[in-house]
Amino acid sequence: MRNTENRFEPQDPDFERKIRDSFARQGLMKHLGAEISALRPGYCEIRATFHAELSQQNGYFHAGVSGAIADSACGYAAFSLAPRDSSVLTVEYKMNLLAPALGKTLIARGSIIRSGKTLKICRGDIFIVNDSAEQLCATTLATIMVLTGKPEHSPS
Amino acid sequence: MRNTENRFEPQDPDFERKIRDSFARQGLMKHLGAEISALRPGYCEIRATFHAELSQQNGYFHAGVSGAIADSACGYAAFSLAPRDSSVLTVEYKMNLLAPALGKTLIARGSIIRSGKTLKICRGDIFIVNDSAEQLCATTLATIMVLTGKPEHSPS
Amino acid sequence: MRNTENRFEPQDPDFERKIRDSFARQGLMKHLGAEISALRPGYCEIRATFHAELSQQNGYFHAGVSGAIADSACGYAAFSLAPRDSSVLTVEYKMNLLAPALGKTLIARGSIIRSGKTLKICRGDIFIVNDSAEQLCATTLATIMVLTGKPEHSPS
Amino acid sequence: MRNTENRFEPQDPDFERKIRDSFARQGLMKHLGAEISALRPGYCEIRATFHAELSQQNGYFHAGVSGAIADSACGYAAFSLAPRDSSVLTVEYKMNLLAPALGKTLIARGSIIRSGKTLKICRGDIFIVNDSAEQLCATTLATIMVLTGKPEHSPS
Repeated sequence: MRNTENRFEPQDPDFERKIRDSFARQGLMKHLGAEISALRPGYCEIRATFHAELSQQNGYFHAGVSGAIADSACGYAAFSLAPRDSSVLTVEYKMNLLAPALGKTLIARGSIIRSGKTLKICRGDIFIVNDSAEQLCATTLATIMVLTGKPEHSPS
Repeated sequence: MRNTENRFEPQDPDFERKIRDSFARQGLMKHLGAEISALRPGYCEIRATFHAELSQQNGYFHAGVSGAIADSACGYAAFSLAPRDSSVLTVEYKMNLLAPALGKTLIARGSIIRSGKTLKICRGDIFIVNDSAEQLCATTLATIMVLTGKPEHSPS
Repeated sequence: MRNTENRFEPQDPDFERKIRDSFARQGLMKHLGAEISALRPGYCEIRATFHAELSQQNGYFHAGVSGAIADSACGYAAFSLAPRDSSVLTVEYKMNLLAPALGKTLIARGSIIRSGKTLKICRGDIFIVNDSAEQLCATTLATIMVLTGKPEHSPS
Repeated sequence: MRNTENRFEPQDPDFERKIRDSFARQGLMKHLGAEISALRPGYCEIRATFHAELSQQNGYFHAGVSGAIADSACGYAAFSLAPRDSSVLTVEYKMNLLAPALGKTLIARGSIIRSGKTLKICRGDIFIVNDSAEQLCATTLATIMVLTGKPEHSPS
């Protein structure tokens, strides 16, 4: 609703490269097989394909996978609006699980709903896809903090 | 405080075997290298050892790992108090990150703080361990639902 | 977005009378000067007009007022979909504050996003109104439990 | 547990007067009949006595009252650790309701569990008292932001 109407101006024109570099350093995202599938100012989408290593006991995606990709999607949605030479960290998030995550692809869409200088508030919706039909299976609210003047460590 | 004073009676004397079987079917826990390190009625502890595949961009444990093992710890703390022939599912959880999860071992401790028939409310505290010193690095509150009469699917 | 597309069928055709009776028994809503301003299956809107007794220290609406009317709006959105002879109770909610609630009217809009038999998940958006311009000032996610076969106590 | 072991040093020796002045300006706290019953660095306790104007539909304390006094207790626990010439605002909180708040007195106890420079994370436990027996009836986790260099507005 309101999310799609938001038009954010990035402060760092180089935000996309910065985010893709950072994502590439997240060992967990690689370990889960997750990829950034869309990225624009105030918005980041991450998806993962099901395999048995992402399951909970009944063969669905584990809620931990939903939480992990939603957390990264929200963090990068915030990072896309942060100034150069800054980094971000998750302060907190809350997730409601709405339907079993039973399907082939899991998609987390993080959208900034309030972009303060220090804190960005983000909604993360998680969808499960089957035969190209998407179903909302979880939703999160996250608070992300911008650390201005503290760029991410490089893996030197 | 109050958690350690709680003494819960399991309804299913066989809860430990049931939980260990269920945990073994969670592909994600194996993929993260997580293990149950303590289990008693109303309490479950899960730990993971750091390796690069569990990292976020700065080399700490990814918050998604904290969330995943806390979610499983809370779920199994609840499952330990559920009747035979039931299963559990996470309704929601909220996590506050308190300190960087920089260390060798991550421990999630799930404790039931309210054991209703249908809903169990659980606190999950996550600690990072360095040289045997534990530091609280995140805390969660989770709501778990008991599905009475619906045992977990076997992996047939 | 998706909320506006949801079309819910009430199970109790008499839901509106039931909700208005219940609301009238909520001493706090009267004490806050809050009123139901819209009600339909899966949706409830509650508003309050500013006066000094609803303020925090800087003269805005106190976050407790936002929380209270959002909680009632979400509870009644859930109650509108519950069967006859049932009642509802709030399991938990989480609220993010997005902007100062400085204005004349505060509106909470509760919309069901997942209507399970036992649990209803609800989003509550809170708006502050000034000169007929609405601004989103807080957002909540709430879990509501339906107690089937347990109608509300009458104030006999 | 760990809360009682925390020993915080206030940065502003005058924190108590500052907090009591601020509390006195919260119209809502007065309207609810709430009072600060304990205050020390990193900790604030607020209580309210039941009367019909604080009720939900079944005659218990409305969850909105629990949320409001917990929010203020957490905010002032944070404010007690903030520097002179600062103010605080609630970023978000999450509350789980654990038992019906049926009784004469409601007590919210806010304790800082992580005191960062910009953000304070607080646990708020809410107890219902009957015949001097206290029962935990709700628990919250809250994030509070410190606005350094921005003292509270006076009611001039």
